[in-house]
Amino acid sequence: MDKEISKAVINRLPRYYRYLGELMENKVERISSGDLSKIMRVTASQIRQDLNHFGGFGQQGYGYNVAYLYTEIGRILGLDVVHPMIIVGAGNLGQALANYGDFEKRGFKLVGIFDVNPVLAGITVRGIEIRMVQDLPDFLKSSPVDIAILTLPKNKAAQMADLLVENGIKAIWNFAHLDLDTPEYVIVENVHLSESLMTLSYKLGEYKKSHCGDE
Amino acid sequence: MDKEISKAVINRLPRYYRYLGELMENKVERISSGDLSKIMRVTASQIRQDLNHFGGFGQQGYGYNVAYLYTEIGRILGLDVVHPMIIVGAGNLGQALANYGDFEKRGFKLVGIFDVNPVLAGITVRGIEIRMVQDLPDFLKSSPVDIAILTLPKNKAAQMADLLVENGIKAIWNFAHLDLDTPEYVIVENVHLSESLMTLSYKLGEYKKSHCGDE
Repeated sequence: MDKEISKAVINRLPRYYRYLGELMENKVERISSGDLSKIMRVTASQIRQDLNHFGGFGQQGYGYNVAYLYTEIGRILGLDVVHPMIIVGAGNLGQALANYGDFEKRGFKLVGIFDVNPVLAGITVRGIEIRMVQDLPDFLKSSPVDIAILTLPKNKAAQMADLLVENGIKAIWNFAHLDLDTPEYVIVENVHLSESLMTLSYKLGEYKKSHCGDE
Repeated sequence: MDKEISKAVINRLPRYYRYLGELMENKVERISSGDLSKIMRVTASQIRQDLNHFGGFGQQGYGYNVAYLYTEIGRILGLDVVHPMIIVGAGNLGQALANYGDFEKRGFKLVGIFDVNPVLAGITVRGIEIRMVQDLPDFLKSSPVDIAILTLPKNKAAQMADLLVENGIKAIWNFAHLDLDTPEYVIVENVHLSESLMTLSYKLGEYKKSHCGDE
């Protein structure tokens, strides 16, 4: 059944998951597509269409069972299993991500932190000792790792991605500011912060133009 | 002229800007759409179509002038002017972003860091002292700020966004894991890290299914 879900729907699932989680925190047990549509600011028909993909969650005049939908979407997103992760690049961003407790709550379990800089060796972040990348191949042989978070600078990231793939990593969450040249089967999800900021800058420029008459 | 550029083209501009910057670093002065297409992994016709929006950059048998195109795209993205920024939320992520020198190179200049936690008051990050949010309204009256980077936890972010907007902020780069309820004229660019990680998790699940025959 999962195979038939379109990419557009999949991209919307994390947002559904977030809102359903908030409803659960607020002890809401059932919600109509109309009410969900109001808080999520999408049309009720979009919600019905999206959630119908998972079959029979909603009932006329009864609404959606929040906990069931939350669990089911979590399962589809793979949040019902533990994903061991490593961080490669223990600089500011790597350490910030290591300290981000929310990931672990959703099954993303940090099992190792690596860097190339000897100065960082042995420093502990959230109870995990920073190791040198020379130890990475051995580490990956003995510990199952699902996801590598790549937070090294651009000039070191390409080579590191190769090393990760050679040692069996199938999924890379890439924060380095380049497009990785990995085999097709490797899943890469990019977070290009600079590009997000540039988009904001572009929109701000458009706003200023339209409000200051400056073409 | 800018008005006619489609949203899809705009979204691709930061990536062009990045590759052109790399070409400049490598002292490449001209490049054909064919060669640019190879390194960027998009079709040459897509490149020609996109870059034609800016009129007459490429010449048959001569290629694009890298520096000119880089400067021009930078100008369209608003990178030719200085954007004063503040960070609101001086936790791990806020400090990591404060320490990210690349932003400043592109004109995004950090002028203030704020937090709600008195423990952080007076600590200096990259030469900027962390202030308390009570000082924010006065600060914004005396210092022009284009962009507020919101890195507070979710439960504090909504209220803070209201305060920022009340004090004249027009653009928010939002890292808090919620959709901000701001007036329509306020530009919000979201970086929802958890959602990016969930998308990676979903794809990894699909990969494992297709390779382990487990439906």
